[in-house]
Amino acid sequence: MSAQDRPNPSPWGSLKDRANIQKRKREAVLETAVRHFNARGFVATSMDDVAAELNVTKPTIYHYFRNKDEVLFACVRRGLEALSEAAVEASRERGPGLWRLAQVMRRYGMIMTQDFGRIITRTGDFELSDESRATFRALKREIDLTMRSLVQEGIDDGSIKGTDARMITFTITGALNWIGRWYDPDGAVPARDVVDGVVATLLAGLEA
Amino acid sequence: MSAQDRPNPSPWGSLKDRANIQKRKREAVLETAVRHFNARGFVATSMDDVAAELNVTKPTIYHYFRNKDEVLFACVRRGLEALSEAAVEASRERGPGLWRLAQVMRRYGMIMTQDFGRIITRTGDFELSDESRATFRALKREIDLTMRSLVQEGIDDGSIKGTDARMITFTITGALNWIGRWYDPDGAVPARDVVDGVVATLLAGLEA
Repeated sequence: MSAQDRPNPSPWGSLKDRANIQKRKREAVLETAVRHFNARGFVATSMDDVAAELNVTKPTIYHYFRNKDEVLFACVRRGLEALSEAAVEASRERGPGLWRLAQVMRRYGMIMTQDFGRIITRTGDFELSDESRATFRALKREIDLTMRSLVQEGIDDGSIKGTDARMITFTITGALNWIGRWYDPDGAVPARDVVDGVVATLLAGLEA
Repeated sequence: MSAQDRPNPSPWGSLKDRANIQKRKREAVLETAVRHFNARGFVATSMDDVAAELNVTKPTIYHYFRNKDEVLFACVRRGLEALSEAAVEASRERGPGLWRLAQVMRRYGMIMTQDFGRIITRTGDFELSDESRATFRALKREIDLTMRSLVQEGIDDGSIKGTDARMITFTITGALNWIGRWYDPDGAVPARDVVDGVVATLLAGLEA
């Protein structure tokens, strides 16, 4: 075994390990914070409580984020990125527009039943800083446009009925976004059934 | 002309006039406040600005409402009452369930493009006091139940396709509520066209 092959003996670990640990710690902050935000709202959430749950103190959290607003926006952003990924993936698949749109709707709906999806709907426009709000709107618009072009493709290939892709998209995303407001993760109906129910109602109106 | 028929000569006006004036002043506070809440959010709205717009000072406003929370909830309540009225009216009409549901959806949608409707969607659960939140949820639930029984009647009379009235209702109200979030009263598309577009997309999926 040459010197280069031996595991790094530094008690600080390798640079790569340390970067990974930093990333995991940042993740843990977001995962804990988002539950608090969803359960009691942004204003009533105390970063002291979030820190205590992670066995650290508030200054440790502020090593990763500048302030509470930045934590909130990082949570919202995580949710938007998941939605965006769902939309972009389906737009790359092959098949009739309606079929691909149905894929996005199911993934989008499921995200809205989970913590990082719920926080998107539960965060008011005015709870974000001006800068975050601008980024939020740009990301949201991107997702809407990806979905709208899927709807348009479905109208063009004859799989979706209707003519106004913009209004159809707003109707779909509205119904799906609202899941994040009324769906109760502790309730009796499983997330999958909720999403299937909403998506089926929407699809019934789109099938040509 | 007998004494009783003569107009009341008191410079304070009659008791009835005074009650009417009080009511109109309370209304004016709500109509001004709701525009401020919708434009910049609850936290950033200053009751000093609302008062200034009405040519009075803040203490005058607090003659009608105990605090800013009470003003917000009065605005939300006004919107909910309008929705409730729309739902109850249509449930009393005669005709197939789908037709009556379509009437509610159009009225509900139009309310969501107006100030007192927009504030419902724009107000987060946690922006209300515990007491107001409980009332809010009770009113919201009542509206949902009225709509759900309309949907159920439509399923029973064969005018609405589908089986799960609860999920259909959540899909409809979700898409309609979301109008309050994305609709721009200063935008190019008239409210009526927005509502017709969303309602048509939803109805297409409900027609048996």
